[in-house]
Order: sequence, then C-alpha cells, then structure tokens
Amino acid sequence: MKIKPDKTILLITCPDQQGIVAKISSWLFNLHINIISMEEHVENSPAFFFMRVVTESNEFILSNEKLKNEINKFENEFYGKISIYHSKIKDNCAIFVTKEDLPLYDLLIKNQKNNFNYNIKMIVSNHEKLSNVAKQFNIPFYYFPVNSTNKLDLEPKIIQLMKSNNIDLIVLARYMQILSPNFIEQFEQKIINIHHGFLPAFKGGRPYHQAWKRGVKIIGATAHYVTNNLDEGPIITQDVIPINHTFSATEMIQAGKDIERRVLTHAVQAHTDKRIIVHEGRTIVFNR
Amino acid sequence: MKIKPDKTILLITCPDQQGIVAKISSWLFNLHINIISMEEHVENSPAFFFMRVVTESNEFILSNEKLKNEINKFENEFYGKISIYHSKIKDNCAIFVTKEDLPLYDLLIKNQKNNFNYNIKMIVSNHEKLSNVAKQFNIPFYYFPVNSTNKLDLEPKIIQLMKSNNIDLIVLARYMQILSPNFIEQFEQKIINIHHGFLPAFKGGRPYHQAWKRGVKIIGATAHYVTNNLDEGPIITQDVIPINHTFSATEMIQAGKDIERRVLTHAVQAHTDKRIIVHEGRTIVFNR
Amino acid sequence: MKIKPDKTILLITCPDQQGIVAKISSWLFNLHINIISMEEHVENSPAFFFMRVVTESNEFILSNEKLKNEINKFENEFYGKISIYHSKIKDNCAIFVTKEDLPLYDLLIKNQKNNFNYNIKMIVSNHEKLSNVAKQFNIPFYYFPVNSTNKLDLEPKIIQLMKSNNIDLIVLARYMQILSPNFIEQFEQKIINIHHGFLPAFKGGRPYHQAWKRGVKIIGATAHYVTNNLDEGPIITQDVIPINHTFSATEMIQAGKDIERRVLTHAVQAHTDKRIIVHEGRTIVFNR
Amino acid sequence: MKIKPDKTILLITCPDQQGIVAKISSWLFNLHINIISMEEHVENSPAFFFMRVVTESNEFILSNEKLKNEINKFENEFYGKISIYHSKIKDNCAIFVTKEDLPLYDLLIKNQKNNFNYNIKMIVSNHEKLSNVAKQFNIPFYYFPVNSTNKLDLEPKIIQLMKSNNIDLIVLARYMQILSPNFIEQFEQKIINIHHGFLPAFKGGRPYHQAWKRGVKIIGATAHYVTNNLDEGPIITQDVIPINHTFSATEMIQAGKDIERRVLTHAVQAHTDKRIIVHEGRTIVFNR
Repeated sequence: MKIKPDKTILLITCPDQQGIVAKISSWLFNLHINIISMEEHVENSPAFFFMRVVTESNEFILSNEKLKNEINKFENEFYGKISIYHSKIKDNCAIFVTKEDLPLYDLLIKNQKNNFNYNIKMIVSNHEKLSNVAKQFNIPFYYFPVNSTNKLDLEPKIIQLMKSNNIDLIVLARYMQILSPNFIEQFEQKIINIHHGFLPAFKGGRPYHQAWKRGVKIIGATAHYVTNNLDEGPIITQDVIPINHTFSATEMIQAGKDIERRVLTHAVQAHTDKRIIVHEGRTIVFNR
Repeated sequence: MKIKPDKTILLITCPDQQGIVAKISSWLFNLHINIISMEEHVENSPAFFFMRVVTESNEFILSNEKLKNEINKFENEFYGKISIYHSKIKDNCAIFVTKEDLPLYDLLIKNQKNNFNYNIKMIVSNHEKLSNVAKQFNIPFYYFPVNSTNKLDLEPKIIQLMKSNNIDLIVLARYMQILSPNFIEQFEQKIINIHHGFLPAFKGGRPYHQAWKRGVKIIGATAHYVTNNLDEGPIITQDVIPINHTFSATEMIQAGKDIERRVLTHAVQAHTDKRIIVHEGRTIVFNR
Repeated sequence: MKIKPDKTILLITCPDQQGIVAKISSWLFNLHINIISMEEHVENSPAFFFMRVVTESNEFILSNEKLKNEINKFENEFYGKISIYHSKIKDNCAIFVTKEDLPLYDLLIKNQKNNFNYNIKMIVSNHEKLSNVAKQFNIPFYYFPVNSTNKLDLEPKIIQLMKSNNIDLIVLARYMQILSPNFIEQFEQKIINIHHGFLPAFKGGRPYHQAWKRGVKIIGATAHYVTNNLDEGPIITQDVIPINHTFSATEMIQAGKDIERRVLTHAVQAHTDKRIIVHEGRTIVFNR
Repeated sequence: MKIKPDKTILLITCPDQQGIVAKISSWLFNLHINIISMEEHVENSPAFFFMRVVTESNEFILSNEKLKNEINKFENEFYGKISIYHSKIKDNCAIFVTKEDLPLYDLLIKNQKNNFNYNIKMIVSNHEKLSNVAKQFNIPFYYFPVNSTNKLDLEPKIIQLMKSNNIDLIVLARYMQILSPNFIEQFEQKIINIHHGFLPAFKGGRPYHQAWKRGVKIIGATAHYVTNNLDEGPIITQDVIPINHTFSATEMIQAGKDIERRVLTHAVQAHTDKRIIVHEGRTIVFNR
C-alpha cells in the first residue's frame, strides 16, 4: 500500500559509528538518486545501526555499476550489509494450507486486487479441501499428502517445485505440518508462519484450550519467520482482541481467526514491502 | 462506578439445572425485592451455573430472616452457594507497595474521590520511599523491612495488623516481596497482584527483558488473585499496548507502567463491586 | 458464531416495572422451555426494559399455541412487545455493491462456510464490475444501472425482486447510490449500511479527505441501519484504528477498508443472530 | 521518556527538494555533531519536507556560532525553518484547571517523578476546589474567579503571571472557561487543551450526552492546540474506548476520564519532547 511503482529500497545493517547517515545520503546525492524517505534505528550493546532508504529510481538502478561500487565500498568500510530491491520486481509467493480458508482467501483477494508487492504463483496443500478456493481464484493448486511418515520423501519434490518456480516467499497459512530442518534451512527468512496464539504464551498445540483453562482475558495471534526452533522464530507482527469468561474454547478459536488473518496479511505485506531486517533473532519492522 | 448506593448484590454458583432463573427471580419477587439487573453465565462439562443479581434494597436486607431462609433453601436444594453484599458496606483495603508509586497513586486518587467501593485503611511497605505519598493522601503508612531472611518473623505482625483492622482486601501494587504460603492461605481470594507482564507469556522476573529479547510487538499486564502457585493465580484483568523494535527494555518498562496501573485499578474495581466469581482457577467477571 | 442449532430467541421490549424477569422466567419454566441464557437492559427516563432470552427448543415452538398465548398475555399486561425467532430459520439476504469488493468477499466467505445465520440469495449492483466475484461464489448477480435520473424507474423493479425472493435483510456493502425514501420505508430496520467514516464525525462524502485535513489520529467505520436521515440511522457497530501524519488520504482509505469490512461483518452477524433491539434511534446490541 | 539528558533536537521545515537530507547530515557531520536519530516526513501538493534530528551534544551547542551560521545558511538557501532545543532546558508549564482533578494529578505525578521534559511552575484555577491538590504536591496555586463578565479584566493579570514566570506551555486540564482571542494570540501553539469528546464528532458542550443519544459504540478524547476556532485547533493525540448500550451518559463521562487523562498526558509529553511540528492546521507528531 505504501510503495508506489518505481521506487528502489535499500536495507542497511552495520555496526554503529559516527557519520553513517551523512555518508549514505551523500553518495546517493552524488549519484543523483533522490531520497523519498529514510528511517533508521540504533541498538546498543553492541551498537548496531539499521536503516531503510526509499529512493526514486527506475529498476535499471539495480544493475548500475556506480551504485554497486558505492555499496561495495560502504560494506567494506563500515563492515555492513546493504540489500537492494526495486518495487517493480515482485516476490513470487507460494501459500501452504491445510483446511482453514480464511487467511488464504485474504491473501488471494489482495493478490487479485494487486494491492501487494507479491504474485501468488501457487497454493500447496497436504489436503484437497481447498482446491476449490484455488479454482475460484484461478491459481495452480498442488496437492502433496504430507504426513509424518512420508514427509522426507515428499519434501524434496516440494522444494524442487519451489526452486523451479523461483519462489521467494513461502507463507504457511494454517499449514498443519511441521517442515523438516532441511526444508527450513533452504528458505531462511523466506518462510512466514501464523501461530494461532499470542507467542510466547502458548507454544505448541491447542493454544486456545490452554488459554481457556487459564481464563485469559485477551487472545492474540503471532506471525513469525520459521526457524528450526518451533514457534521461536523472529516475531513479525502480533495482534490481540479482548475476550471474557463467556467464550468457550471453540468460540475463542472462531474469534481468533479474524486476528490470525489480519496478522498474517500484515506480516506478508511488511515482508514483501521490504520493511523487515532480522538481527539476532529479533525483527526490525520499518513503518514504510 | 456502576453501583449506586443502596443496592444488594447476590453472587450465585451452582451446578446447572433447569428452572434456576425462574426459581431465584420468583422468591425475590415474593420477598418484594426489585431486580435491577441480572447477568448469568453457564459452563459445560461439567455444567455449572453462575449469576450476579443486583437488587434495590437497603442494607437491612442482609439480616432479613426470610431472605436468609430462601438462600438456605436454595443452597440445599440446588447444591449451590449464594454470597450477598450491600453497596453501603465497603471493603477495607490495604495497599502493599515497595518503590513504584504510579499504581498506588491511582488507587489513592480513586479512594479520595470516593469513586470505588473500598476504603483504603493503610499502606504497607517493605521500603520507606513511599511514606511521603501516604502523607500526601493522609493514609497510615506501616513500614516492615521484609526480606527473605526475616519474612517469617515479620509476616505474623503484618497478618495481625490486617486482622485487627478488619482488612477485606490486600492489593499488591508492585510489592516486591513474595508472600509466604501461610500468609496467602489466610487471605484466599482476598489478595490481588499486578504482574508487569502479559501472563502466562513471561512468568517470573524481568518480564520486559524477556519480551525484548523475543522482539515481541505487544506488551501487557495482568492482575490476578494470589495463590501459592507464583504468577498462576486466577486472572482478573489484562490489557496490552502495541510496541515495536524502537523500544528498549527500559522504555518498555516505562510504557508498561500505564497499563499496569490501568489493569490493577480495573481489577480492584471489579473485586470491590462484587463482580467476580472464581471457579476452578478461572474468573467469571460480570459486566456490572 | 454463538448460536448453535435448535435455539429459540425472544427479544422483549416493554416499559419497566417490577417482576418482569420473574414473570417471563416463570411462564417459560411452566411451558418446560429451558433458558440457556438471558441478558437484560434497563433504561431510565422513561424507564424501559429490554431482554433477550435464548431457550433450548425446536422450531415447532414458533407455532406452539400455549407460547403464543403467553406472549399475547404478556404483551397486553405489560404493554410490551416480544419478537420470536428460531435458529434454524435463517435470514434471506441480498448484498448491494458498486465497485468495492472487500466487504462483499467477507460476507460471501462467511456465507460459504455457513458461519452465520443468513443465506445470501443474491448480489445486486449498479455496476457490472463485481459480477465476477458473484461467479466465483456462485451467487446470482443482478445488474441495475441505477443513477440519479433513472432511480425512481429502477427501484420498483429492485423492490419487486426483493419481495419475490423473500429478502429479510439488505446489506449495503459500499453501495454508492442513495436509496429513495419509498425504498427505505418498505424495509425498515432491514437495511444495514457501512459508512466509511467514524460517524457522526464525518457525515456525507469523502470522509477520509475531511479527516486528513483535520489531521485526525484515529479513523473508523460505522455500520448502521438505514433511515431517511442520511448517515443518521441507528448505529450498530463501530471500530477504529490509529493513524498518524504519514498517512495520505489515499492511504487512509486503504487502511480503512479493513475496518469497514470488520465492522460490517459484525453488524450483519449481530442482526442475523437476533441480538439487536432498536429503541428511540439507539440500538441495544446484546452480547450473545 | 525517550529523551536522555544532553541531547539537542532540531525541528526542520522547508519546501521539499532534492538533497536536503544529505545537506543537513553533512554539515552536522562537519561540525562533529553525532546524529542519534532522524525521522523525516514529506507531504505533497505542495511538496513540503519535515524532519526531526536528535544529536548528541551538550547545551552549549545552542550558542555555537558555527551551528547558528549553518542554520542561517540552510534557512536562506532552502527557504526553511529550523528550531533548536536542548534536553536540559525544560519547558516551564502552567496547568489551568476548574474542578476535575484526574488529569491534573497525572501531570503532577509525572512532574514529581521527573519523567517529563517540563517543570510545573503553577496551577491556575477559576475555582478553589483543587487548591488542596496543589498543596499535596507543593505547587503554587493561583485562584482567579474568571467568568464571562470579568474575563477581560482578569485575563491581563493571568497573562502577566505567565510572562513574569516565563511560562512556555499552558495546559488546559479540563479548564471550563474559554480563553479570549487576545489571550490565545499571545500563546500560539503554546496552549494544549483536552476535549472530552472524539473531535470532530462532538464539538461544543456535553459531548457525552450527544454521544449517548446517537447510541455510539466508541467514545474518545482529543488533545489539541488551542486556536480561536473553538475545538478546531490542530489535533495532537486521540484515543478511544469501546462502550455499549449499557452505559448511561454519566457512566460514559466516568469511563471517558481515563482516556482524557491518557490523551492529555501523551500530548504534553509529545510537545515537551519537541516532537511536534504544526503545518497548515495539521500536526506532524514524530515518534521520538
């Protein structure tokens, strides 16, 4: 929503030191690249600097040798890292689902409206139920009947499917299978999961039943990058709603679906807008 | 806030069965007691019935023999329990503090404005710092230098102080000592604590530092009854605020104080309005 | 969400007086109708009593003569009104749209999942754009090219379409034509509109542009019953999100769509769950 | 909360043009002033640029001739305006009240804890009721029995009191008198008011009674700078809480007090942190 066409985005990470902002803004100025917005963040102990710069420039900037040189020089001089993206080059996205359709619908609707910086290339599922939703939106549907026994046989085929379609982002939209460590390693910070609980409160299964027993007065959902530490990956977005004693566990599940959908959609939007830097297991999520 | 003078409140708990509402409303009608509002809640497996009834009646109703008879009959017939309160008879309250003054101030201000159904009889502290706040509001301040070694010596004196002042409710407003099991047993469901974290996510100490490390996007606070299971007592109220990566752990603490105050105040108000029933470790908190 | 099959709902309105609750619960008890939940509300000056009772009973209760008699007696004795509904008999619903698809999608998804107490019978539009969405969900789509000059010619045909399909509820999901007074009168309290502003702050057109100019920090949406007083009908649900100076009017519109959808869906749910009583231009919206 | 001692803050406004960020960050770098954080905002039609820069520097920087020169050069070259502040130099603040004590208490508590970048120099009131609160916190209390007939006689004395105490900020904490145009002109963007309604929904008096009649489901409060357009000054902060039909107008007032306090406190904090730029009747409120 925030990014108009023809913008270049730089994500910059480096140990903090004096003069970084001046340095970066000067070489952009000297290359006649106009800064539209910049947002920075500094952390202490150890001091680290993070910045997102949005500039006005066409996509050819990505192969501009002068810019590449400046980035190289900066990375060497400041021991930093700069990632560069262009708004015209959208992420190829695969949505993994099982039976729950609400978050899937939301991503498909936004895709169809062309609201977001991604193209949904396919839906992957371990269950056939949602093939009709894929048909409604005319998106290829791949059925892999993954379970705990055949997982290691089927995953290589799924990985192959991802690679041959140049998938940049995998969204687990209530996909009810745990990916193997091997799978996850090949898509580091490229898999987003929605956890139907307010992490880290209720890790693992049946979080709403846990929540009901404790009589919590607020329930939430968490979108996070997937790592091999189950439900421990860097948190991207969270949201909550107030509940009360009148909610049964089932009603909490129902009420939670709306937050899960909202939280996952926001996380995918932040990721594909190139607004996220992950550092030491935490996310920095820039505003725009 | 919701209770005007001269109201009688009945809190009713019993195994669920047909005709309970008709039964209760009939004998109240027959005793010429006008129902102002009633709110009920039913739970399944096992089926339990809970109701709060507010009636228009003066405080003499509490010693009305006919009413007592009906209550006895109901309790026997339905295997239930009815607690009865009158709005003119306010809870005597002791506030326990250490160094944090924000929630203390809020309770004192509301007490001074006579907004709530309690009278603050005293402030108890293991530290002298807040004696000046006590002075500002002209409330007796008792200093007991409790620490882990002298706790068992000092607690009997504190308990004695509570009993001799007919204290109905103890509010731990950021009191930094853990009460002994013996203390807690003598004030079952009469001690409210504010936990400066969103339980059950971050039990134990330094919840904000835990939250910072996980990069959470929402922080919260929880008011709960104190039981001998540390931070596991029945949750009364919870609230949250959104945060982001720019908050240091210290800034999260600062931002959290406002929620802690709000959550504790709401919990004390719900308790003293007689809007809470505790059942199987969960609270039912009626609206009014 | 809250209503399971085979429930009967009574909505009761009458001038307040002593003994109403006892009266109602007694005759239900005598008819062997089990009360699952009851929620009441009282207003002063003048004193009015409102109650929603949910009972366990099959749909034949609607034609039970004894119940009809009791209701008649009650209405005469207490000058009240009782409406009775059964959960198996769902509202027939028509959705009116123009070009915006987000709230339409949400209602269709919930309809397809059979989550709500309505059946969407048709989509009506003054524009052809959303016919493909109708096709996606296999719902009849009626195109009436309504504009200000032909409105009085076309509306009778639309009204005829509603009547011949026994439409119980019309949902204006961003329908960009104002209905004539004649149309509205024929569907009193049966038309729900979503206003893309936080009423009554920004009545009329372009509310987000108005909001931007004033630099508001919160935007919202309002679902309300349609009356002949434009944007003045009884408010059903409202919700808001925080914004800030970085949002352009266009971005506010984008951000607002999510709340509009949520607010409209909640309003339709409350209406079809039979949780709403309208009294003197205000709504009483019961919890469940 | 966000500003530690020994920070210099620059608020920059100018017509937008290429290279502004590079320009500013370069001369700060050349003056050996370390940027801690910078946050910018750009508006279109016409294009305007706004930035807040926080630098590490002691208070002597304010009289540094080289910096003054650079600022002058920038203002001339870019047709801009730079305001400069130092965190050690706190705003002198006067609180105007009538009878409501809740927001006053909050400002006094924060002042006593030295949390904020202001010193409360005095409380001014048109009523004697809150003199005891002033006494509790040992702050001078000035009583001016202002009413509509004597206002023009008394205001010059109040203005004189402000000037002789070098008051930088006047906070109207539920002060129930309207200031004259002459008064307001002398303190442009230096008077903050809390309006106990969600502006612009309910301007003028008795906003909660207006809200009750319309049956709104959300109530709010608004802090804004005072201009001669009653309740139309630039909005600084807003917040809301959900309500429902069970709230009487009086209960809405009670529930609203908590938001009013919160909203006013946040506005005063933003102002005294030097996080606000006013432009064309709208505020830009930087995050930190």
